[in-house]
Amino acid sequence: MRNFDEFTITDAVMERLKDARDARTHQISAALVRHLHAFIREVEPTFAEWEAGIDFLTRTGHFCDDKRQEFILLSDTLGVSMLVDAINHRGAGASTETTVLGPFFVQDAPECEHGADISGGIAGEPLLISGTVCGSDDKPLPGAVVDIWHSDSDGYYDVQQLDEIGDLAMRARLRTDAHGRFRCWSIKPAAYPIPHDGPVGQMLEAQGRHPWRPAHVHFMIWAARHEKLVTHIFAAGDRYLDSDVVFGVKDSLIGAFVEKPPGGAEDGRVLERPYWHLHHDFRLRLDTADAALAADRLPA
Amino acid sequence: MRNFDEFTITDAVMERLKDARDARTHQISAALVRHLHAFIREVEPTFAEWEAGIDFLTRTGHFCDDKRQEFILLSDTLGVSMLVDAINHRGAGASTETTVLGPFFVQDAPECEHGADISGGIAGEPLLISGTVCGSDDKPLPGAVVDIWHSDSDGYYDVQQLDEIGDLAMRARLRTDAHGRFRCWSIKPAAYPIPHDGPVGQMLEAQGRHPWRPAHVHFMIWAARHEKLVTHIFAAGDRYLDSDVVFGVKDSLIGAFVEKPPGGAEDGRVLERPYWHLHHDFRLRLDTADAALAADRLPA
Repeated sequence: MRNFDEFTITDAVMERLKDARDARTHQISAALVRHLHAFIREVEPTFAEWEAGIDFLTRTGHFCDDKRQEFILLSDTLGVSMLVDAINHRGAGASTETTVLGPFFVQDAPECEHGADISGGIAGEPLLISGTVCGSDDKPLPGAVVDIWHSDSDGYYDVQQLDEIGDLAMRARLRTDAHGRFRCWSIKPAAYPIPHDGPVGQMLEAQGRHPWRPAHVHFMIWAARHEKLVTHIFAAGDRYLDSDVVFGVKDSLIGAFVEKPPGGAEDGRVLERPYWHLHHDFRLRLDTADAALAADRLPA
Repeated sequence: MRNFDEFTITDAVMERLKDARDARTHQISAALVRHLHAFIREVEPTFAEWEAGIDFLTRTGHFCDDKRQEFILLSDTLGVSMLVDAINHRGAGASTETTVLGPFFVQDAPECEHGADISGGIAGEPLLISGTVCGSDDKPLPGAVVDIWHSDSDGYYDVQQLDEIGDLAMRARLRTDAHGRFRCWSIKPAAYPIPHDGPVGQMLEAQGRHPWRPAHVHFMIWAARHEKLVTHIFAAGDRYLDSDVVFGVKDSLIGAFVEKPPGGAEDGRVLERPYWHLHHDFRLRLDTADAALAADRLPA
């Protein structure tokens, strides 16, 4: 087969996929080719534009290292991450809604005691983070693993400033107590622009978009026999709730950062300055597909 | 705007593009989002598959350096490069057909005299490459710039083995003489697999495809007031003519590598062993869009 033109090239590529190693590889490859060709046919790029596309992808790849994932930022800002999230959480019902993982999750965050201060000494306004975790039957889930991570008051995560601060901070792994409760102290996070000094930042600028996300705290919660929950709680009243650059905000995920006067906090700690309190109750979804495997997935 | 689900997310991203800096950026961005979302909706990737996609793109970017362009290989092997080529050469009429540039073109190849040996001393069977360049009116084009590049008898280009051979070879820039003719000596190229030790090679293997291209010589020809011609001439009889991994073969681009006995060649050179001769007459297309600019584009 040869002599392909703009009309026959797509079928030619399809024909080459007939010996794909499995049906799923064939399905994904064929769909990719059809949609990619349809995109090219619609926009009819010049050679200079094709070269610019190759260059954009190349620079996006070169921006990726162990501290920066520019392709996840691209997926997030094009709405792809939230679309994949939505497709994978159909019929979530009464369980807590999900949102994007984002590029700042770290495997194996430091394990902390109930009530610990996880701020790592980073300056900021004190924030008490507390919550409960229950199952779909509303019963508390003791021993659930709760990963928490958030930015500092300038909007930067620990991994973006490791050279200066020397260690992970504003990040921890807790376990719920016998009543399904967890609690820790940290500092109040701020709204922040996603890293925009790379190709994705240039894309946003060309598209006339700001790079900001509303202030939020990330949660990843794992419990035996339940689906892993990946979500944020966003700060009520934030100016970017309706224009989150990664399309992640849902009403059910907006929580009050309640300002409290100096004095004794709920957990007995005495503060000499005002502090903030964020409380949220999380409800996990039963992993009907693979309950046994879900238990295995729980970190040791 | 918030609370996006799998049905509303696409319009939400569209809405954010309304302040794009120009109409073309808006058009390309909007088409990209629509087709990318349609691809995701069709295949419904799991999170693990989404992560595999992010990882594939990241590794493809990391494979790109000044000697290797893995994203061009990806575009070539998915048929995108030939589609872009076809769209940009509608109505080429009687002018020479085009094919992909490929990843081994080098800007500013060494300028060589008419009749020079461009093999750089690389071992192989001698090949006389000759041709003529004419315009759409069939009149010869003197002073046209002819870039030639090809692989060695093992299928490797100079830029893939620079550490061993030390300099560019099997690559030159010639100029046509007063009769529109060009001529040089080199060595006979071989069929070769595209570089397949990276992510694109893994993709081809998963798709059950071989990575081979039929033997060919690349030509890029520039002349004042004419469109730049990017093409190959393929070796007649090559076993991969019907399965070129980048879909580049056209019947009009297949040329005979004619075997010649030892003795005096067409240009007076005397050879003690058999040699090959590849001759092709090229016909450029008038650049009606921008004839003045085309002249400016001619390398000095």
